[in-house]
Amino acid sequence: MHHASDILLTLFIIFIAAQIGAEVAQRLKLPGVVGEIAAGCAIGPSLLGWLSPGDILAGTPVDVLAEIGVVLLLFAVGLETRLDDLKKVGKSAFLVGTLGVILPFAAGALWAHGEGFAWIKSLFVAAAFVATSAGITARVLQELGVLQRTESRVILGAAVIDDILAMLLLGVVSSLQGGGSLDLQSLVLTLAGAIGFVAIIGWGGTRVMRSKSGWLEAPINPHSALTLVLALCLGLAWLSTRFGLAAIIGAFLAGMIASETRQRDELEHQTLPLLAFLTPFFFVVTGAKINLAELASAQALWMLAVVTLIAIASKLAGGFLGALSLGRRSAAIVGFGMVPRGEVGVVIASLGLAAGVFSEQIYAIIVAMSLLTAMITPPVLAWLLRRQGEDGQRDDGKTASADG
Amino acid sequence: MHHASDILLTLFIIFIAAQIGAEVAQRLKLPGVVGEIAAGCAIGPSLLGWLSPGDILAGTPVDVLAEIGVVLLLFAVGLETRLDDLKKVGKSAFLVGTLGVILPFAAGALWAHGEGFAWIKSLFVAAAFVATSAGITARVLQELGVLQRTESRVILGAAVIDDILAMLLLGVVSSLQGGGSLDLQSLVLTLAGAIGFVAIIGWGGTRVMRSKSGWLEAPINPHSALTLVLALCLGLAWLSTRFGLAAIIGAFLAGMIASETRQRDELEHQTLPLLAFLTPFFFVVTGAKINLAELASAQALWMLAVVTLIAIASKLAGGFLGALSLGRRSAAIVGFGMVPRGEVGVVIASLGLAAGVFSEQIYAIIVAMSLLTAMITPPVLAWLLRRQGEDGQRDDGKTASADG
Repeated sequence: MHHASDILLTLFIIFIAAQIGAEVAQRLKLPGVVGEIAAGCAIGPSLLGWLSPGDILAGTPVDVLAEIGVVLLLFAVGLETRLDDLKKVGKSAFLVGTLGVILPFAAGALWAHGEGFAWIKSLFVAAAFVATSAGITARVLQELGVLQRTESRVILGAAVIDDILAMLLLGVVSSLQGGGSLDLQSLVLTLAGAIGFVAIIGWGGTRVMRSKSGWLEAPINPHSALTLVLALCLGLAWLSTRFGLAAIIGAFLAGMIASETRQRDELEHQTLPLLAFLTPFFFVVTGAKINLAELASAQALWMLAVVTLIAIASKLAGGFLGALSLGRRSAAIVGFGMVPRGEVGVVIASLGLAAGVFSEQIYAIIVAMSLLTAMITPPVLAWLLRRQGEDGQRDDGKTASADG
Repeated sequence: MHHASDILLTLFIIFIAAQIGAEVAQRLKLPGVVGEIAAGCAIGPSLLGWLSPGDILAGTPVDVLAEIGVVLLLFAVGLETRLDDLKKVGKSAFLVGTLGVILPFAAGALWAHGEGFAWIKSLFVAAAFVATSAGITARVLQELGVLQRTESRVILGAAVIDDILAMLLLGVVSSLQGGGSLDLQSLVLTLAGAIGFVAIIGWGGTRVMRSKSGWLEAPINPHSALTLVLALCLGLAWLSTRFGLAAIIGAFLAGMIASETRQRDELEHQTLPLLAFLTPFFFVVTGAKINLAELASAQALWMLAVVTLIAIASKLAGGFLGALSLGRRSAAIVGFGMVPRGEVGVVIASLGLAAGVFSEQIYAIIVAMSLLTAMITPPVLAWLLRRQGEDGQRDDGKTASADG
C-alpha cells in the first residue's frame, strides 16, 4: 500500500527546494529559474545529497517528470507564438540558427585539437558545444512577459533550425567516430525528414486549425479543448523524437498549432497551473546533474573557465552576427538567448563518455559548461531585456520594423 | 538526446485512450471514469498489449504519474470540503467507516475458510475485502457536482476512518501470518499515531489556516498560493504514508486545509487543468492491471462472481446500516459509495502472493474483484444520485438535517 512513500518524499523535496530557490532568486532580482537550478545543485548528489544519482538517471520517474515539465513549457511558449509572426523573422532566425551552429562547432573543434585530441575525436567534442537548449531562454522570456518581442521570435525560430542542424551534426560525427563511412544518402534523408516534419506540422497544422477550430467544441467533456491539445502536445513531442529532433520541438509546434484556435486565451490560462507544478522538476534536475567533485582542482577549473568562455563567445557571436539587422542591442539579446546548452550538451557528453572518447574529467567539464551557460544566461538576458525596455519606444519601433 | 522517445509514446497512448474512453462513456450516459478504466483494460497487457506489464509496475514513471494523479484528485476533493461540514456528519461517518470494515472482513474470512483456507490465512484473504479506495467514488461525486451533499460528506469522512481501520487490520493479520505474536502495545501506538496525525493535521491545520491565510499572499511569485498548497499536498501525502495511511488521506487533508484560505475559489479553478492532465493516468493504470488470462475458466469466473458479490454486499450493508439515519435512499448512496476497493485490494493481494498465502488464481480473482467493484460503482452511484436529485427538494431537505 505504501510503496509510494519514498517517491513522494523525493517529489516533495524537489518541489519545495524549487519554490525556495525561486523565491530567493526573485528577492535578489534574478530570474526564478536561476534559483531553481541552484536549488537543484544544492540538494543534488554533489552537495546535500538529498537527491541521489540514481534519482535523476534517464528514465526514472523524476527524470520523466522533468521531461514532461520542459515539454509543457515549450508547449506554453508555442501557445504564445503565431506562425505568421515567426515567418516575419524567418531570415534573421535562419542566419542566427546557422551561424550559431557553425561558429561553436568550429571553435570547439579547434580547442579540442589544441588540447591534443585527434581531429575525429575533436569533432565529437565540438558537437557538445553546439545545441542550444531552448527551455532556459523560453522560461526567462516568459517570466519577463516579452515573448511577443521581435528578439524572442528570432530566438524561438532559430532554436528550431539550431536543433535540426545539431541533430544532423551529431549524426555525422557519430558515424565518423564509429569508423563508418559518411553515408551521404542517409544524411540527406534524415535532413529531409526533419525539415519535412517541421514544415508539414508547423505550416499544415496551423492551416487546418485555422479553418476547423470549431471541432474542439464538439466533445462533451468540459475540459475537452485542453485535453485534446495536451494529447496533441504529447503526440507531436513523441513524433519529433522519431524524426531525430528534441521532444520540445514537437511540443512547441503543438502549442503554435493550438494558438490558432478560438480557445487560445483560455488554453494559455489553463496551462499555467501545469507549468507551476511540473517545470520546477526540469530545472531542479538540471541543477542536480552538476558534479562538483570532478571539478575540484585548479587545472579542472581553469579548463572549465576556458571551455565555458569559448562556448559563450562562439554562440554569442553566431547569434549576434545573424541578428545584426535588428540593431546591436537586439542582436546582443538574441545572441545571449542562444547561449544556454542545458541538457543537450549533457546528453552528448554522456554519449562521448560511453564511446570512450572523453575522460571522466572532460565529461564533467562539458556537463558543467552546459549547465554554467544555462545559469549565466538568465540574469544577463533579463538585464539586457530590462535595459532595452527602459530605453523606450524609439528603439523598439526601430527593431520591430527592421526585419520582415 | 532521445531516450525520452519510448516513454513519451506510452504517455501519449495512455492519455489519448483515456480521452476516447471517457468520451464514449459519456455518450453512453456513463461516468467518464468508467470509460477511462475500460480503456486501460483494453490497451493493457490482457488485451491489446500497448501497455506492457513492466510499464505499470510499482515505481515506474507511469505508476508514479498515476499516484500523483490520484493524490491531486483527493487534494481537489479536499478543496471542496470544509471541516465544519465534515464534523456535522461525524456520527454517521464513524458508523459507516466502522461497519464498512467489520462486515466485509467477517464475510471475507467466512468465505475463505469455507474454501478450505486455515483460519489465519483466511484472515489475510479477508483483509483484501476491506479497504475502500476513495479515488473512484470521489471522481464520480466530482463529475456529478454533488460533493456538497450530505451523502458525499459521509462517504469522505468514512473513507478516512475506513483507511485507518484497514491499515490496523492489515498490521494485525500480517503479524499473525508471519508467526509473530500479536504485539498489542505496538498496535495501540500505530493506531494512536494514525488518529493523532489525522486529528492534528485536520483540526490544527484548518485552525492555523483560518487565522493566518494572509501569509499566502506574501511571496512574489504570481502562482505562489497554488505552489505553496501543492507543496503542502505532496508533503502531507508523504507524511500520511509515514503514519501507515494511504497517500491520498494526506492529500485530502491538505485540500481541506487549503479550503480555509481566501484563495479557495482560485485554487479550485487552478487545480482543474492539473486533474485533467494527471488523473487519467491513475484510472487507465487501474484498468490495465486486470489480468483476464487467469480468469479464463468457468470455475474461475464462478469464483470471481461469488467473491465480487460478497465484497459488494458486505460493504453495501455496512455503509447502508451506518448511514440509515439519513433515510434509506441516502443510505444506499453512501453504501454504494464505499463499495470500490480499487488499488488497495490489489496491493494486499500482491502481499498475499509474495507471502505464499494466495495461489496465482486467487490473486487474479482478488485483483479482478477489486477492479470490478471499481467499475460497477460509478454507473450505479451516478444512477442513484440522479434519481435522488430528480425527487426534488423535499427529500433533500430531510437528508440535510437528519444528522448533526
